[in-house]
Amino acid sequence: MRPVLAITMGDVNGVGPEVLAKALAQAEVWAQCRPVVVGSAHVLEAARRDVDGFPELRAVRHLDEAAFAGEGCPVVDGGFAAPTYRPGTLDAAAGRCAVEWIKLAVQWAMGGEVAGVVTCPINKEGIHRAGCRYAGHTDLIAAMTSSPDWRMCLFAGPMRVVHNTGHCSLREAIGAVTQERVAASIRIGHEALVRLGLPQRRIAVAALNPHAGEAGAFGSESAEVIAPAVEACQAAGMACSGPHPADTVFRRMREGEFDLVVAMYHDQGHIPMKLIAMDEGVNVTLGIPIVRTSVDHGTAYDIAGKGVARAESLCAAIALAAEFAGHG
Amino acid sequence: MRPVLAITMGDVNGVGPEVLAKALAQAEVWAQCRPVVVGSAHVLEAARRDVDGFPELRAVRHLDEAAFAGEGCPVVDGGFAAPTYRPGTLDAAAGRCAVEWIKLAVQWAMGGEVAGVVTCPINKEGIHRAGCRYAGHTDLIAAMTSSPDWRMCLFAGPMRVVHNTGHCSLREAIGAVTQERVAASIRIGHEALVRLGLPQRRIAVAALNPHAGEAGAFGSESAEVIAPAVEACQAAGMACSGPHPADTVFRRMREGEFDLVVAMYHDQGHIPMKLIAMDEGVNVTLGIPIVRTSVDHGTAYDIAGKGVARAESLCAAIALAAEFAGHG
Repeated sequence: MRPVLAITMGDVNGVGPEVLAKALAQAEVWAQCRPVVVGSAHVLEAARRDVDGFPELRAVRHLDEAAFAGEGCPVVDGGFAAPTYRPGTLDAAAGRCAVEWIKLAVQWAMGGEVAGVVTCPINKEGIHRAGCRYAGHTDLIAAMTSSPDWRMCLFAGPMRVVHNTGHCSLREAIGAVTQERVAASIRIGHEALVRLGLPQRRIAVAALNPHAGEAGAFGSESAEVIAPAVEACQAAGMACSGPHPADTVFRRMREGEFDLVVAMYHDQGHIPMKLIAMDEGVNVTLGIPIVRTSVDHGTAYDIAGKGVARAESLCAAIALAAEFAGHG
Repeated sequence: MRPVLAITMGDVNGVGPEVLAKALAQAEVWAQCRPVVVGSAHVLEAARRDVDGFPELRAVRHLDEAAFAGEGCPVVDGGFAAPTYRPGTLDAAAGRCAVEWIKLAVQWAMGGEVAGVVTCPINKEGIHRAGCRYAGHTDLIAAMTSSPDWRMCLFAGPMRVVHNTGHCSLREAIGAVTQERVAASIRIGHEALVRLGLPQRRIAVAALNPHAGEAGAFGSESAEVIAPAVEACQAAGMACSGPHPADTVFRRMREGEFDLVVAMYHDQGHIPMKLIAMDEGVNVTLGIPIVRTSVDHGTAYDIAGKGVARAESLCAAIALAAEFAGHG
């Protein structure tokens, strides 16, 4: 049975509704999962106008078997009606809906009513204006699922990166390069590869300093912190190695030598993935008790409502969530 | 007149002699410059055996007009005879020759006898065993040319990166993100683009922290240090901008939006350039009074003498040095 995935619409005035319409018009997406849109049926109806192949919408109230019976795409707003659809406009009411829809989807996932959550972009200022104190999606979801030790990850086909830290200064990221935390990052990456059912789970751990510290000449973290973490995980049976020089480790993964890289900080992983993955990158949150993937782009207010937004990242996010859910 | 370039052989037991032989067998290289090899004629004779199209070698003693008269490739060893050619072997005598050849080439460049220096790889342990206290090529050349404010750069066609710092720990690199140093990096990049005669000199300065610090949420360097440096350089007439989020700035350069990126630390620039440039990357030293480029690979002892080393990086290094020298 195809897994049920809750796909949140995000900020209705961003590109979310448009990429949702484009993604759900593709038969391939329906072959991978049974989607339920958490968002506004009216907005989606408006956004789908120029999209061929989009199924009928069915506004439903409850997530029961009936919601998935018959044709059409179920849409649930949970009682939070979207404000007037004004693409490209920052609106606190849109921010409030986006937050409530995420909460609903996460509650369903925690309760086992859906197999995973896929999120369309929200606007940080929008949710702040709506009184939501979180920096973004991931912090909110981590708090809702009581997950202190989550990791921000980027996946793109056979390229996978777990970041030891995410949204913090580079100075703070260096401070978080501890043996315990790096080992947890490796373990979280390993468990994801197990869950995806990959036959090989070769994890490369990137070094913090250039040339992996060049035998201590450029910083001691490689030998004193990262290497012991790698060894501890090897002793626990994981196929990890490193620390590897960061300037070649991503290329080596692209060439097939590794299945996943543990990056020491946000840009170390984001720079290569955004260069290689272009539009098919998927943001994945690991270390939380639910399956959660997200598009790897923002609300893009500048192009919202113009019909030019690309749905590749959302399609990839849905496919990956289905893969995680299918092997769960 | 084609510029005279001194090409140092580097460690004779590395891939230097082989890539030299392969590069000098190409008519295109001779169309760009008049090369003089600083190294061992015997070793080059051995390395060229399987290379078609290699010109005659002429061992010469002095770098005068006669050295460039007639056919053939002049080779100068400066009185430092290479040890027995043993590919893949670490040898202090090879290290000593490599250092002396670099010194000779740099002296020529400082004296105006050659228009630039292109270096083949040396082995750090080899030169240390020979009693050379420098970490590598660039430190030695910076010391010889009394250049305290040099920058390690990577160029690959229209992709160019100036690194604010090079071989140091990430912690030290953060400490070197000062307004003065960042402004100097921008200026050094600007002058290189002027020297290359580029019609546009659009310089993007990368941020230190993720999302360019997200308005101060992830570190204050963007607003307090990098932005003022950018503004000072703009006021001085340079077409620079930033700080830009590092995870998209290299992609934007690849798509043609910028002519050069100033990276804040070694891996920030090396990760994307090594991913994109593959074999055509060139290491360039800027902020020194001579033209100096280098291959972007090491001695590769594991493949030395096996005939499989690729000469693309050396060819690109020669072409770039000729370009710098031609517009000098």
